[in-house]
Amino acid sequence: MKGRGLTLSEVAPLVQADLVGDGSTTITGVASLDAAGPNKLCFYASTRYRKQLLATRAGAVLIKADHVDDCPVPALVVRDPYYAYALLANELHPRDRAAPGLHPAAVVAADAVLDDGVAVGPNAVIEAKARIGRGTEIGPGSVIGKGAQIGENCWIASGVHIAAGCIVGNNAVIHSGTVIGADGFGFAPGPDGWRKVPQLGIVRIGHDVEIGANSTIDRGALDDTVIGDGCKLDNLVHIAHNCRIGAHTVMAGGSMIAGSTTIGSWCMIGGQSAITGHIEITDGVTITGMTGVTKSIAEKGTYASPLPAQPVRKWRKNTVRYLQLEEIAQRLKALEKTFSALKRRTPKDT
Amino acid sequence: MKGRGLTLSEVAPLVQADLVGDGSTTITGVASLDAAGPNKLCFYASTRYRKQLLATRAGAVLIKADHVDDCPVPALVVRDPYYAYALLANELHPRDRAAPGLHPAAVVAADAVLDDGVAVGPNAVIEAKARIGRGTEIGPGSVIGKGAQIGENCWIASGVHIAAGCIVGNNAVIHSGTVIGADGFGFAPGPDGWRKVPQLGIVRIGHDVEIGANSTIDRGALDDTVIGDGCKLDNLVHIAHNCRIGAHTVMAGGSMIAGSTTIGSWCMIGGQSAITGHIEITDGVTITGMTGVTKSIAEKGTYASPLPAQPVRKWRKNTVRYLQLEEIAQRLKALEKTFSALKRRTPKDT
Amino acid sequence: MKGRGLTLSEVAPLVQADLVGDGSTTITGVASLDAAGPNKLCFYASTRYRKQLLATRAGAVLIKADHVDDCPVPALVVRDPYYAYALLANELHPRDRAAPGLHPAAVVAADAVLDDGVAVGPNAVIEAKARIGRGTEIGPGSVIGKGAQIGENCWIASGVHIAAGCIVGNNAVIHSGTVIGADGFGFAPGPDGWRKVPQLGIVRIGHDVEIGANSTIDRGALDDTVIGDGCKLDNLVHIAHNCRIGAHTVMAGGSMIAGSTTIGSWCMIGGQSAITGHIEITDGVTITGMTGVTKSIAEKGTYASPLPAQPVRKWRKNTVRYLQLEEIAQRLKALEKTFSALKRRTPKDT
Repeated sequence: MKGRGLTLSEVAPLVQADLVGDGSTTITGVASLDAAGPNKLCFYASTRYRKQLLATRAGAVLIKADHVDDCPVPALVVRDPYYAYALLANELHPRDRAAPGLHPAAVVAADAVLDDGVAVGPNAVIEAKARIGRGTEIGPGSVIGKGAQIGENCWIASGVHIAAGCIVGNNAVIHSGTVIGADGFGFAPGPDGWRKVPQLGIVRIGHDVEIGANSTIDRGALDDTVIGDGCKLDNLVHIAHNCRIGAHTVMAGGSMIAGSTTIGSWCMIGGQSAITGHIEITDGVTITGMTGVTKSIAEKGTYASPLPAQPVRKWRKNTVRYLQLEEIAQRLKALEKTFSALKRRTPKDT
Repeated sequence: MKGRGLTLSEVAPLVQADLVGDGSTTITGVASLDAAGPNKLCFYASTRYRKQLLATRAGAVLIKADHVDDCPVPALVVRDPYYAYALLANELHPRDRAAPGLHPAAVVAADAVLDDGVAVGPNAVIEAKARIGRGTEIGPGSVIGKGAQIGENCWIASGVHIAAGCIVGNNAVIHSGTVIGADGFGFAPGPDGWRKVPQLGIVRIGHDVEIGANSTIDRGALDDTVIGDGCKLDNLVHIAHNCRIGAHTVMAGGSMIAGSTTIGSWCMIGGQSAITGHIEITDGVTITGMTGVTKSIAEKGTYASPLPAQPVRKWRKNTVRYLQLEEIAQRLKALEKTFSALKRRTPKDT
Repeated sequence: MKGRGLTLSEVAPLVQADLVGDGSTTITGVASLDAAGPNKLCFYASTRYRKQLLATRAGAVLIKADHVDDCPVPALVVRDPYYAYALLANELHPRDRAAPGLHPAAVVAADAVLDDGVAVGPNAVIEAKARIGRGTEIGPGSVIGKGAQIGENCWIASGVHIAAGCIVGNNAVIHSGTVIGADGFGFAPGPDGWRKVPQLGIVRIGHDVEIGANSTIDRGALDDTVIGDGCKLDNLVHIAHNCRIGAHTVMAGGSMIAGSTTIGSWCMIGGQSAITGHIEITDGVTITGMTGVTKSIAEKGTYASPLPAQPVRKWRKNTVRYLQLEEIAQRLKALEKTFSALKRRTPKDT
């Protein structure tokens, strides 16, 4: 698409949009309302950016019917401008894919099975009996372990490590530095120290999953660690052994789940939140950033725990009081009790 | 062991177990109580799984004497079923070791010293004067810096980076993406910005240490960063420069220790906890997950600080009140005071 | 410098120091007050180490005029001993640089542009049209993506991934495992799951920036992610897409910033703190470790939110009370109200 572009008349049907304005404008890419020139497409999803909309010089704007009157340029009217934007941005800016084939500096085991159209970058390593699906790209320096299976049309970026036996579905995107299938953290205490418990399960990742950079998903101890279809995990996310994450659940940067916990589908886990082990979280739960979850959650909804930043002097005082909370509560109770006794003795008390 | 298996009569003495039942059953591996077939060994360590025990079809179960009557299949009676399980699981499922030798795509400096039985994977790099001990495996793409020393019988997985001069003891397991010996975070503020302080120490790791994926242990500024024998560190753990961690201490995923802190032996540090710099924590301390430790801890015991997740509406109200804690405490105090004055004036007050 | 050393008379002018004592002593390196022998240089910046100063056997000590009388060995009197130490430690312990040139096992695209004195380590990959500035070192196994630009005199350690198009200024130090320019975390929810939003910006890193190990800085969605001159980021730091970090801001281990947030210059962000997306933090703000920042900060100063670790029994009680805070506040208010009514009815009330 790049270089040539599409006319607005060509673009509109791709997202079932109603075109308001001249359909002959050529769209070559997407941009923000601020920066867009006359061949760029923008989206307008929040009135927070109304000022930018009114001033935009874009070629067209994806917009809801409610806001179309504010649009100074051709409009593509859709129900969900951001979703339509995502579709069109992919169309106008397809990923720059590596050419199929094995780089001469790739190391591919003789009995690894690579389907048609696979691209393997320099210094990537594909170990014995691994299978790579059609059209998948394995980036420079990535290591696919013995017998691991990667689906079709995946993009495994540079420096990704997928350990022996693990399974990744179709259309996966896995960013640099992420480690799939390292041993779970399992040790039995004994008289002379901790004894390693062999981690015999695998990691099983569904279709359409994206995982950010430097995240880690550990293999199961006996059963598998399972990531459902459509999950999106950000950078520096940690999923411990035997967790099961339902379909379409998203986890923001630095969020972590301890071992053997089950998360439902369509959950949203905020950044740096921590979920303890051996619990269950039902479908559709939102956990705000920096929240600690220590018990199972059976009801859909939003849950939170963090305290907000305060000026340090105020924080210091409140912290002292927090450490006295039990005592404060006891004093309040005592006061209520004597007060109630006193009230009974006070004249004219109703 | 794999493929052939052991009879229960052969298994029992390996863990000093009393065999209850037929000793001729062949055990080929371990499994969970749920999934085990007739040639699998399980363990039963908690009555939480009593239902699974009663229904198991396993070949045998490692179990305490107290529970043996509930076991529907042959039992191996031991004092600590989980520890015995760890021993036997290692016996029945030995790690799939790389064959000794240098992969043709490994890059090994001429003056690096590799002992007998060392395996170096494809694209691994062993720099000048590094030493690798007998039987150690260096995974694909790992980099062992100049003069670094790795002990015997270690498993350095793929993509591990051990920087110049660092020392790792025997029997280490280090998972993918972990970085040992990056520079500590040391800068001196000056008029034109921060000036780097050279990090001249090394990282010194004892024997029998396991470190998870994508963790980081920084080299010391002047002295060394030291990890004691038998420590077990999970994924995404960060140990800053000049820390000293005592023997057999374990740290769960995402826990971090700031610079120059000393941790005792046999401590347990929960996931995502953070320990400030320049403090000391004595032996045998447990820190729960997500806890912030800001002062030295001189007494053995368990310490905690996180707040638990609440439904967001409740959290919002409690947060507002938390920010008023100092004021609440002052109001309570004022009330106590006037109340006490009032009580003195009230008739019939005892 | 190594091996030969400098005399104190040679050292003093390098940091505009007044020499007190014999200038002929040879200094070969730096050390701590405790460990220093007669050819080592130390610094004394805090009276906390007065005991060590009084007992030191160092060749010389960098010290303030106020403390020079306590110094038992030759003194270099300066205004800021730690800053002078940083300057001299770099002089006495220059980094062990790789020899310029391409290792035979490096993979460098034919149309990559490498300036004079560039060193590329074994298994490093430099992709098409990337540019590497004069004197820069690319460590073993690092991957520089298509069209990425790395400045002069940088040290890119082993296993660093800098994705296509990203720009790094001069004198950068980037430690192992760090990933610059992975896709930002952007997805639009749709009827059949989350749709990826292409991440079309780059990461733009200024001059004199250091980034620790296993950190991640994501590329922008439409605009760029920008790291200002002189910033210093520790290990496991996460910067999401479209963030802008001002010059000379430092971020300690595990701190994270969500998308589209702007941080001022000369800020100090403590370890494991989390800053939410789409906010602005002004210049000169200090955020203590483990703090959650959920709103813009317009005033310079120090901000905090974490609760300190307590013995678990105390923590449990306080946590119960924290969960009742709204109720406690209501009860206090009710008591104040009835009390105030009562007081009015009480005899002899002033």
